[in-house]
Amino acid sequence: MTRTVYLNGEYLPEAEAKISIFDRGFLMADGVYEVTSVLGGKLIDFAGHCARLSRSLAELGMTNPHTDAEWQAIHHELVTRNAVIDGMVYLQVTRGNPGDRSFAFPDPEIAPTVVLFTQSNPGLADNPMAKTGMKVISIPDVRWGRRDIKTVQLLYPSMGKMAAKKAGVDDSWFVEDGHVTEGTSNNAYIIKGNRIITRQLSHDILHGITRAAVLRFAVEAQMEVEERPFTIAEAQGADEAFITSASAFVMPVVEVDGVAVGTGAPGKIAARLREIYLEEMLKSAI
Amino acid sequence: MTRTVYLNGEYLPEAEAKISIFDRGFLMADGVYEVTSVLGGKLIDFAGHCARLSRSLAELGMTNPHTDAEWQAIHHELVTRNAVIDGMVYLQVTRGNPGDRSFAFPDPEIAPTVVLFTQSNPGLADNPMAKTGMKVISIPDVRWGRRDIKTVQLLYPSMGKMAAKKAGVDDSWFVEDGHVTEGTSNNAYIIKGNRIITRQLSHDILHGITRAAVLRFAVEAQMEVEERPFTIAEAQGADEAFITSASAFVMPVVEVDGVAVGTGAPGKIAARLREIYLEEMLKSAI
Repeated sequence: MTRTVYLNGEYLPEAEAKISIFDRGFLMADGVYEVTSVLGGKLIDFAGHCARLSRSLAELGMTNPHTDAEWQAIHHELVTRNAVIDGMVYLQVTRGNPGDRSFAFPDPEIAPTVVLFTQSNPGLADNPMAKTGMKVISIPDVRWGRRDIKTVQLLYPSMGKMAAKKAGVDDSWFVEDGHVTEGTSNNAYIIKGNRIITRQLSHDILHGITRAAVLRFAVEAQMEVEERPFTIAEAQGADEAFITSASAFVMPVVEVDGVAVGTGAPGKIAARLREIYLEEMLKSAI
Repeated sequence: MTRTVYLNGEYLPEAEAKISIFDRGFLMADGVYEVTSVLGGKLIDFAGHCARLSRSLAELGMTNPHTDAEWQAIHHELVTRNAVIDGMVYLQVTRGNPGDRSFAFPDPEIAPTVVLFTQSNPGLADNPMAKTGMKVISIPDVRWGRRDIKTVQLLYPSMGKMAAKKAGVDDSWFVEDGHVTEGTSNNAYIIKGNRIITRQLSHDILHGITRAAVLRFAVEAQMEVEERPFTIAEAQGADEAFITSASAFVMPVVEVDGVAVGTGAPGKIAARLREIYLEEMLKSAI
């Protein structure tokens, strides 16, 4: 089955979805994105992704081209057309195609470019990695300073993923000034006793939608949450570690820079948080 | 006249030059670029741009899809087809279109995307700003840490250009740890006495092709060159200031954060360097 994608108001076969070489997303990385998970044909935490999209656009002085209801309709249409049961919907908005290249932003009348597509991933919630845990290495965080804006400037996260692959592990954690910021496409956590430790929100990290939900559920489940930076050494000496992202949900981390975390097997608290997260999110899925 | 652009081996009318939404340049800013000036129909310092392109591609683990001679032939063909007398040729290479989105690099067999287009700018070498000088403001440098690789991650430089526009000046100089790194799309210099001061090469700044040529000519003209970081206060107290780039050549800076530099008019040394640069570069233009 040919995948149907959305481009500027049209539903097209994926091979026909093309943008101008003058699009500012292509020439200048002048665009933002969101990824929403789909489970059982329904969108997970969709309101959160809409809110963050609005914020990213506002931070860059771009107008949100759609209402939340319109975004939702496009998401549902794509999920239906592509018969996605489990997987995700990717959404990107760029500052459009001014017809030529210039560092200056184009006239605000220039329409943004809007692209959405689906990725099917049957059994997404049953990822076997949740049972084995993932291994990470640390690398320097040399990304730009506004990681709270979800831009398409993903070259370094992509390089981080390749560094992990080369080292025979699953992902990289970024370290800046001696402390972990986050993973290549996820937020990072450690657990000591009953306490979950994760870096506080700032310009340094993505304001994870899954992060917000998981921390809320953790507090509701009587766990303590401490928002502060932590070091690689602390992670190696922690009882448990895990990451959160929209598509990995809660995923245990069992090794950091070659050192086993806790028992070296996924921990109970991370497993419990994953369970709660999926259970609660499925209730509110739309 | 419709502009002819180059895309993956074809010469096309600009409106027909389209790339897939799955191109890694569009989704991940996974690409590099070069801009070569054209004066009198000839390419300025072309060998320098070819060398830097090779370096950028190598740093990102990408294969250079063309020999220098092939690149030159494409440049000349575009200049001829678009009857460019003065202006520039823009070149971009991305890691291509793997047909879907993933942080991991695609199979190296995936062909890169190669885009080139021209911009006509009659009288480029007679830019009136060379007589009046440009004004700059300083803003924090929050770009990623590998500015020596000429990637398309240009959102922040673009924001810097807009910040300058909003402040009623011509450009922004980036400041990191109290020192100027460079301008949004140019290298920055100050002059004290007979001494030209500019930041040394590192991962912190672009290794300007024009920078290399201008410093060579400065030494040949018996000027002293000191490669070290300088502060905004030093720039404000300097005798002269200027920037260099492939399309602005040598351009005097007469105001920094609202303070006049030297007399507040373009200085003699910058003017002389501009003259020498243009004279020498026209001799070796191809």
